[in-house]
Amino acid sequence: MKTAVQAGKPVLLEHVRITDGFWTDYLKLVREVVIPYQYETLHDRVPGVEPSHAIRNFKIAAGEEEGEFYGFVFQDSDVAKWLEAVGYSLAVHPDPELEQRADEVIDLVAKAQQPDGYLNTFFTIKEPGKRWTNLTDCHELYCAGHMMEAAVAYYRATGKRKLLDVVCRFADHIADVFGTGEGQLPGYDGHQEIELALVKLYQATGEEKYLKLAQYFIDQRGVEPSFLVEEWKKRNGLGHWSPVPSKNPPNLSYHQAHLPVREQETAVGHAVRAVYMYTAMADLAAYTGDETLLAACKRLWNNIVHKQMYITGGIGSTHHGEAFTFDYDLPNDTVYAETCASIGLIFFASRMLRLEARSEYADVLERALYNTVIGGMARDGRHFFYVNPLEVWPKASRGNPGKHHIKPVRPGWFSCACCPPNVARLLSSLGEYLYTVSGETLFVHLYIGGEAEVELDGGLSARLRLESALPWEGKASLELSLPSAAAFTLALRLPAWCSAPHVAVNGETVDVQACVRDGYAYIERVWSPGDRVELTLPMEAQLVRSHPQLRANAGRVAIQRGPLVYAVEEADNGHGPVSSLVIRKDAPLAARFDPKLLGGAVVIEGQAMAEEEAAWSGGLYSAAEKKATPVSFKAIPYYLWGNRGEGEMAVWLRE
Amino acid sequence: MKTAVQAGKPVLLEHVRITDGFWTDYLKLVREVVIPYQYETLHDRVPGVEPSHAIRNFKIAAGEEEGEFYGFVFQDSDVAKWLEAVGYSLAVHPDPELEQRADEVIDLVAKAQQPDGYLNTFFTIKEPGKRWTNLTDCHELYCAGHMMEAAVAYYRATGKRKLLDVVCRFADHIADVFGTGEGQLPGYDGHQEIELALVKLYQATGEEKYLKLAQYFIDQRGVEPSFLVEEWKKRNGLGHWSPVPSKNPPNLSYHQAHLPVREQETAVGHAVRAVYMYTAMADLAAYTGDETLLAACKRLWNNIVHKQMYITGGIGSTHHGEAFTFDYDLPNDTVYAETCASIGLIFFASRMLRLEARSEYADVLERALYNTVIGGMARDGRHFFYVNPLEVWPKASRGNPGKHHIKPVRPGWFSCACCPPNVARLLSSLGEYLYTVSGETLFVHLYIGGEAEVELDGGLSARLRLESALPWEGKASLELSLPSAAAFTLALRLPAWCSAPHVAVNGETVDVQACVRDGYAYIERVWSPGDRVELTLPMEAQLVRSHPQLRANAGRVAIQRGPLVYAVEEADNGHGPVSSLVIRKDAPLAARFDPKLLGGAVVIEGQAMAEEEAAWSGGLYSAAEKKATPVSFKAIPYYLWGNRGEGEMAVWLRE
Repeated sequence: MKTAVQAGKPVLLEHVRITDGFWTDYLKLVREVVIPYQYETLHDRVPGVEPSHAIRNFKIAAGEEEGEFYGFVFQDSDVAKWLEAVGYSLAVHPDPELEQRADEVIDLVAKAQQPDGYLNTFFTIKEPGKRWTNLTDCHELYCAGHMMEAAVAYYRATGKRKLLDVVCRFADHIADVFGTGEGQLPGYDGHQEIELALVKLYQATGEEKYLKLAQYFIDQRGVEPSFLVEEWKKRNGLGHWSPVPSKNPPNLSYHQAHLPVREQETAVGHAVRAVYMYTAMADLAAYTGDETLLAACKRLWNNIVHKQMYITGGIGSTHHGEAFTFDYDLPNDTVYAETCASIGLIFFASRMLRLEARSEYADVLERALYNTVIGGMARDGRHFFYVNPLEVWPKASRGNPGKHHIKPVRPGWFSCACCPPNVARLLSSLGEYLYTVSGETLFVHLYIGGEAEVELDGGLSARLRLESALPWEGKASLELSLPSAAAFTLALRLPAWCSAPHVAVNGETVDVQACVRDGYAYIERVWSPGDRVELTLPMEAQLVRSHPQLRANAGRVAIQRGPLVYAVEEADNGHGPVSSLVIRKDAPLAARFDPKLLGGAVVIEGQAMAEEEAAWSGGLYSAAEKKATPVSFKAIPYYLWGNRGEGEMAVWLRE
Repeated sequence: MKTAVQAGKPVLLEHVRITDGFWTDYLKLVREVVIPYQYETLHDRVPGVEPSHAIRNFKIAAGEEEGEFYGFVFQDSDVAKWLEAVGYSLAVHPDPELEQRADEVIDLVAKAQQPDGYLNTFFTIKEPGKRWTNLTDCHELYCAGHMMEAAVAYYRATGKRKLLDVVCRFADHIADVFGTGEGQLPGYDGHQEIELALVKLYQATGEEKYLKLAQYFIDQRGVEPSFLVEEWKKRNGLGHWSPVPSKNPPNLSYHQAHLPVREQETAVGHAVRAVYMYTAMADLAAYTGDETLLAACKRLWNNIVHKQMYITGGIGSTHHGEAFTFDYDLPNDTVYAETCASIGLIFFASRMLRLEARSEYADVLERALYNTVIGGMARDGRHFFYVNPLEVWPKASRGNPGKHHIKPVRPGWFSCACCPPNVARLLSSLGEYLYTVSGETLFVHLYIGGEAEVELDGGLSARLRLESALPWEGKASLELSLPSAAAFTLALRLPAWCSAPHVAVNGETVDVQACVRDGYAYIERVWSPGDRVELTLPMEAQLVRSHPQLRANAGRVAIQRGPLVYAVEEADNGHGPVSSLVIRKDAPLAARFDPKLLGGAVVIEGQAMAEEEAAWSGGLYSAAEKKATPVSFKAIPYYLWGNRGEGEMAVWLRE
């Protein structure tokens, strides 16, 4: 099974400094706007934004204030995600004032922990007798997982153990409560998250019990009789979200609990839960060498990326349950494609990459990152898409209830703030997704400019400096600082979007075809200090088509250039409905950097035929032919759409 | 305002005998299968069909049995619709046994009437103290309206007054309860129906108070302060459909109560309620000469047929509220297009036609009738579509929750049996939609073969015999039997689907262009006994396109031949997804009668390019071009789709 090379372990965030022209803007935005803004919202201090009450909940649970719990049952996780983002930010950008704030929040969280290690403000304040009675709905272990991720990030950045100790005690408590032993609850959470968090806790502490607990949650899921169904019976059908008992047991597929995970063939149910779970499965497969688990991961990966993923790296075809539907069902205008789900897909991809150095994982990671994830955030860092459609008609968003979830512009921070803090934590930890090391091989997965210090087997350490013109130009160079000449392998990802990659070392062309394997060019040599690798990845604007089974895109093309998918917006194309444009495939597509467009971006211009509304003589239906005139059209990167007011947008255009 | 000729009053059902080859099958099916089957379901005697309990409810309310109310709050209307269909059936096809059954049901209904005239089994049995407290949800006046329609139909067919007297007493009671006077309820029903029924009751009895009551309901609707909102406040937000009080007042647009009816500009809300209301508005405009009401009818008509109607005559773009959405929003795959709504559109069209002899009304009536309405019923008379989609992918109906309402084959009788009895009552009264008389002009609106006796002004009576080859061939002839030669005008509808109609009287060509007005050829002459009119309406299979604003159909064509819209089904086209077909507009479309196809039908065969899935080398997305090979395709009439098992279907095909 494991014939592929393992890409190994990531070069950790604290050893990577991003100085890339494209990305530093985003990292700065997260650091200077998103994290402070989120801190203020958690403290209910942003005028016009619905109070979060998240910090107040902790104060009440800690006995510092009187009051009632307020917010979603998973409100605690907003505090955790903020702390996690702060941890990543501090790892690369020390900020004593921010650290002081975080320490105060951590003190508060610690104070809210119960004597037995339990930590959850909803059940502490509001339903103290009902701990662990509704795993299906109540996100108790989900919130625990987020706090664990935060603790690990903060510990790694600052060396401070306070929050780590809190979550270890909580994890120990959870390990007592859950399991298949006498007197234990044979359960698992309705919303996966703790599984991957426990792996991180194991990595940070070396405590094997946390890895085993993660494994327990993964193994127990989907086992018959279903814990979620039994639990529902015990509650007499009462749930958290409805005041009346439900006649129907929970939808197990929604929770990926319909089958033991190793028997799952296709990605189903709530997309975020699914990819969080697959991430943990891949983690566990890496640590345990469990081949059945690895096989399940590969099956589920293949199902997603070859049958259920939008070209933007979005996943989740329906807003009903924010869920996957079925193979090739990828409607552009009723899509969900939650920002969080693409972030989870990046987690999954990064874990698969550690198991197998196959560039497809990094290709998908890049696709999700450059399109859906950064598209999820407005240029001001204060407005976010939860749903990332590929086709928008603003009137339909308002006037057709089946499209109410499709927003034509990014709304402000929601009371359910899952996506914004998720974007913040992903972007502030971006450095950790660039490189991995396996034995004496250093893998370069993403061409994001900056510096990194890496340790290879045999005590070899190197410092490398990457310069990149991506995503605007397909050029990158890598300079190595070594204490002395050393033999090792540099494995460079050759992106699938580039058909003619060129690599040179110190000006000498490398025979890429001779050294490529699974999408990586393996350059094995004795490297000297100052050696310089140049990559040229010619980037043509291309028309992309979809698999014939993907009915929604029949007769349509999308435009892609390098990692970026493009969108046509009404703002640039005043020819009536976007649907009236027919792309001329014979005409060239011209790429041009427009410095004025939303921070500067390469736009694509091409030729189309535009059907003229004025020339239409029929009513609603007519045998008349449509008249079309040649027009130029302009497409902008998808991640920038919806930043210039309301208008129509489409990724897939008629050809 | 009233510049158009009025097409006047319908030639009543009892004076029309349909002998048409196409339609007699349907009428026979309704008579021999649907009505008896419905009778059995009402009596809970059909194995495998959820009990209706409708007759039992009446027995309980009448004191004949003990028990609880069961079924929808509007369950009574199923009994009423059955009686109405029976009335129409008996008018043209006497059947003593059926009449005996109906008399028994009527006896039961009469017995369930309360001493004050009130009649509703739900409130009589289940909530006796709560009459008229929830007009928004509870369909009390709606059920009353259906019983009135039944009574009028039965009285007209049999001359028996029993049910008519029952509903008159009920209407008198309603007139006492409702109104703007002291101690009256200033209300109206959440589901319009009684308005048009009261007009019929006026027509049958000559009692002006019923017309005035109809007018009151129409005039009061949408008046501020909103009755429905005030009622909701009085109920403290409690509704019929949810056990918990609603924080939001009723959605007034859903009920077409957001504005006074004369101020309504576009069709909004629940489509069936809308068209039932517009029907009554047109009726009232005819009787009262109220020009503001007529103007509203015209605006709403134009909005529907020029901006919100499917090519099949379906209306209602969303299943959320079974409702209209907004102009040009006509998605084919998430559509609602309820059978009942198209029936209501036929009611509205027939009333507009009486006001104005403009063929557009009859064109739309014909479109809805030949496509959506008869398509709503399976060839066995026991399975029905409520939703009539224009594009079906059976996997999506199961696998995408946004399309669960789209059924790939007709389900059996539902517990909510609104559509099947509605089809039954429409088809059994079909004769009444063919002709109208205005002064000395006889209008022929639909070319459905049969005989009719008509009375024109001046005591002139004529007997006519129409033979028609529609919808398969564009030929019809009309023979007149007159007591003696007489001068009058025959106005023949020239359907919009025919570009070169030809009319001859006794073999002599009529100069149609010289005598056409608003789509009718007015042939004014002294007619002699035995005169014969021949119509030739050449019927080409045509490719039809949509208005450029109708985004869902951009780049697509539909096939229409005569009144029939065509659909391409997987059963006839084994080239992979229907979406892989691209119609060649340069290739001819051939029409051929296939006697084996579901009772015999003209199929259309043409040429297309089919994209080959086997030749696709890419994965989900690729810059590869698609290979296509020329294939023949076959389309069948839309009304026949879904009769050969599950498969893909599409009306709009890529061009």
